[in-house]
Amino acid sequence: MLFVLSSPSGAGKSTIARKLLADDDGLQMSVSATTRGMRPGEEDGKDYHFVDLEEFRRMVANDEFLEWAHVFDNRYGTPRAQVEAMLAAGKDVLFDIDWQGAQQLFQIAGGDVVRVFIFPPSMEELRQRLERRATDSVEVIDARMARATNEVSHWDGYDYVLVNDDVEQCFQGVRTILQAERLKRSRQTGLIGFIRKLTTK
Amino acid sequence: MLFVLSSPSGAGKSTIARKLLADDDGLQMSVSATTRGMRPGEEDGKDYHFVDLEEFRRMVANDEFLEWAHVFDNRYGTPRAQVEAMLAAGKDVLFDIDWQGAQQLFQIAGGDVVRVFIFPPSMEELRQRLERRATDSVEVIDARMARATNEVSHWDGYDYVLVNDDVEQCFQGVRTILQAERLKRSRQTGLIGFIRKLTTK
Repeated sequence: MLFVLSSPSGAGKSTIARKLLADDDGLQMSVSATTRGMRPGEEDGKDYHFVDLEEFRRMVANDEFLEWAHVFDNRYGTPRAQVEAMLAAGKDVLFDIDWQGAQQLFQIAGGDVVRVFIFPPSMEELRQRLERRATDSVEVIDARMARATNEVSHWDGYDYVLVNDDVEQCFQGVRTILQAERLKRSRQTGLIGFIRKLTTK
Repeated sequence: MLFVLSSPSGAGKSTIARKLLADDDGLQMSVSATTRGMRPGEEDGKDYHFVDLEEFRRMVANDEFLEWAHVFDNRYGTPRAQVEAMLAAGKDVLFDIDWQGAQQLFQIAGGDVVRVFIFPPSMEELRQRLERRATDSVEVIDARMARATNEVSHWDGYDYVLVNDDVEQCFQGVRTILQAERLKRSRQTGLIGFIRKLTTK
C-alpha cells in the first residue's frame, strides 16, 4: 500500500508521520529527493536526499522518479527504486507529498494508493504555527500561506480527511485508517490459500 | 453509513455486533423481520421482529423491505422505515445479514454501504462451535455447514475481510474499520462549512 499524507506546511503532518513510523513496523517512509538547501537540523538521506539541479534533471531524464514537482524555486521527487524495494520487502510506504504528487501516484498505482489529507484547525492557527517555527521571513510565511490555501482547495482529491485540532487524536485517526485499509479484501492476498482451504473442505 | 457484518452462522458475528453496539453510541442495530420461530432466550423486537408468513408477504407486497431473502424454510427481511429513522437521527446502521442481503443493499445504496465479512478460523472449528451451542440437531448442523461453505464462497462481494481467530482482536479490527470509514472524505459532509471558511479566508 502507498499511504499518502498531505497537508499544508505547518499543519502537523511531520509529527504525525513520525508517530506512525515509530508505532508501526510494517510502514516505511519514502524519502524524497530535493534541490532545496538543507535546513538546520535536517539530515541528508533521512529528511531528504539533497541533490543539485543537475543531478535532479538527470534523474528526471532517466525516469527515476515515481512523481516529481516544482514548488517555489525548488524541485521535489520520489525516487522509484527506494519505493519498489520497500514494497518488495512487504512494507507499506508512507509519503509526505503534496496534492500534485498524490495525484501522480494515484494515476500510476490507482487502488494501491490511500490518500489522507490533514486540515489545520484554522488558517490563523496555521500562520501562528509557521511564525512560531521562526525559521522563515514574513515573505516566506506569506508565500507558504498562499500555498496552504491552494493545497487545502484540493482536499477533494483525497480518500480521507481529518482536522488536526489535537495532534494525538489526529494521529490515532490516521493510524486507524492505515489499520483498516490493511483489512480491505483487495489487500488480503495472504488469505487466498486460507479461503481456498475453507471452501473446498 | 450502512455497515454490514456477514459471516457463516457460528463464526462469532453476534458477539462482535453486541460489542460494537455497546462500544459505539453512533451505531444502531437494524432488527430484521423473520417468519422463523422464536428460539429460547430470544426477544421479539430485539433479536428479530417475529412475524407470520401472511404478514411477511404483506410487507413484501407493500415494498416495506430494503432487502429480503428466503433461507431454508424461513424468510428474513430488513424493514425500510426503521433504517430510514436511524439514518435521519444521524446514526450509522449495523446489519447482520447474509451475502444476498449485502448485495441487495449495495445495489440500492452503493457507496453508503460498507461490507465486512468474518471468516471462522476453520470449518472444523465452525462445526464444533455449532455443536457446542447444542440447540440444533445433526441434520440442522449439516445444513448450516453446507450453507456456511456457500456463504464463505461469496467473500469476494465484501469490502473488508477478517478471520475470527480471537474474538477480541476481531472485534478491534471491525471497530477500526467502522472508525476509519467515518473519516472518508465522502462521509465528512459536516466539514464542508469548515473547509469553505478555510479556503476563503
